[in-house]
Amino acid sequence: MILLITGGARSGKSSYAEGRVAALPGRPCYIATSEIRDAEMAERIAHHRARRGPEWREREATFDLVAALTETDGDGPRLVDCVTLWLTNLVLTDRDWQAELNALLAALPAQQSPVIFVTNEVGLGIVPENALARAFRDAAGLVNQALAAAADEVQFVVSGLPLKVK
Amino acid sequence: MILLITGGARSGKSSYAEGRVAALPGRPCYIATSEIRDAEMAERIAHHRARRGPEWREREATFDLVAALTETDGDGPRLVDCVTLWLTNLVLTDRDWQAELNALLAALPAQQSPVIFVTNEVGLGIVPENALARAFRDAAGLVNQALAAAADEVQFVVSGLPLKVK
Amino acid sequence: MILLITGGARSGKSSYAEGRVAALPGRPCYIATSEIRDAEMAERIAHHRARRGPEWREREATFDLVAALTETDGDGPRLVDCVTLWLTNLVLTDRDWQAELNALLAALPAQQSPVIFVTNEVGLGIVPENALARAFRDAAGLVNQALAAAADEVQFVVSGLPLKVK
Repeated sequence: MILLITGGARSGKSSYAEGRVAALPGRPCYIATSEIRDAEMAERIAHHRARRGPEWREREATFDLVAALTETDGDGPRLVDCVTLWLTNLVLTDRDWQAELNALLAALPAQQSPVIFVTNEVGLGIVPENALARAFRDAAGLVNQALAAAADEVQFVVSGLPLKVK
Repeated sequence: MILLITGGARSGKSSYAEGRVAALPGRPCYIATSEIRDAEMAERIAHHRARRGPEWREREATFDLVAALTETDGDGPRLVDCVTLWLTNLVLTDRDWQAELNALLAALPAQQSPVIFVTNEVGLGIVPENALARAFRDAAGLVNQALAAAADEVQFVVSGLPLKVK
Repeated sequence: MILLITGGARSGKSSYAEGRVAALPGRPCYIATSEIRDAEMAERIAHHRARRGPEWREREATFDLVAALTETDGDGPRLVDCVTLWLTNLVLTDRDWQAELNALLAALPAQQSPVIFVTNEVGLGIVPENALARAFRDAAGLVNQALAAAADEVQFVVSGLPLKVK
């Protein structure tokens, strides 16, 4: 089962995702895509960890999501939080995000345990002035479309509440 | 009855909210959270006032929403327009928005007359470059989540049309 | 039949719109509102054209949408892609967008063949710092509300998936 949870910043996506994961059998695994680049991010991570509780397994996957999914398969649901940070990591290090996305899409059908992806909608504001930001939001939109097409279920979270879009 | 109406800028939230208020019994009250800081805002306020009509009571509440709700309770529905400007007022004057939010949440169950909140979704664009804007959109997202959790009904307005999310 | 398809950048709006048009009888017509101002835009246009295929008629309408709709009526559905770029063209050349919008709204009831509009939601991010961007997103929101009110059907596209809002 592939579930994609999308929404804006601080829309309650992660909290909703954790609730969905908790309702699934098996020991859950949190796959963190964040590189801890600054104090702001460190604080967020600590906050999320405290909320989840000790029964969660944890794994970092700043670049290689396929390896993380393969290695954690079979024991319980995996929560990938979040896709947009993973894409940020790839773009900032000049990796080929399209190739990485294709590899991820190819690996999904083989997954035995559920995969819950959290991602961000970033294309609903005014057009960014700088070209890099425009390119990033294009990439983020394409990644979201591809994962939504591959997912069994897609939820758009607004103010903490899910709207089912697939 | 607590109703939260959320959406983007110029999405028709206020107009939809006024229609909902007009359908409720009693003399409606408009609780304006805006400080008139510039001509742009003064124009918006005059435009909204002309649309509502003379039967509406009016009250300003740039900071103390709890007092405004307490004082206007019992006569008819109150429209708080908007939560995001109230938060802006708190943040710009270095007040403790989390404490103010908690006081507001604590005051809601005692309300006899309906409260209709209008708020903005601000987290669906690209990550803002400046840290203050990022902190603000985090706060706005948390406020929206908290009010949505407390509300009996939540509507997400897109192009003037409501999508029921709760 | 008037259909409005709205959503964020790279949300899959155009692709969804093309699928809807293809399901309608008659030879489809693509009404492009884009002025090719740079290489980035030229690339997008070429990409869209390749996806659509040779059966589509094509017409440019950077300013005069009414003329484009009148001239193409009767043969099959017209896809206007996109309203937000049309508004951009009007604003950047200091034309009276409100008058142009009114003329467009007045022309819609007379259309024999379906019109499918693609537009962008741009008001769901943080408030832009520059006044021109704020004015533009206000205008874009008002245009979307007006077209949504005139439309028989409105779809909000998230990650390539439509949410029916009307």
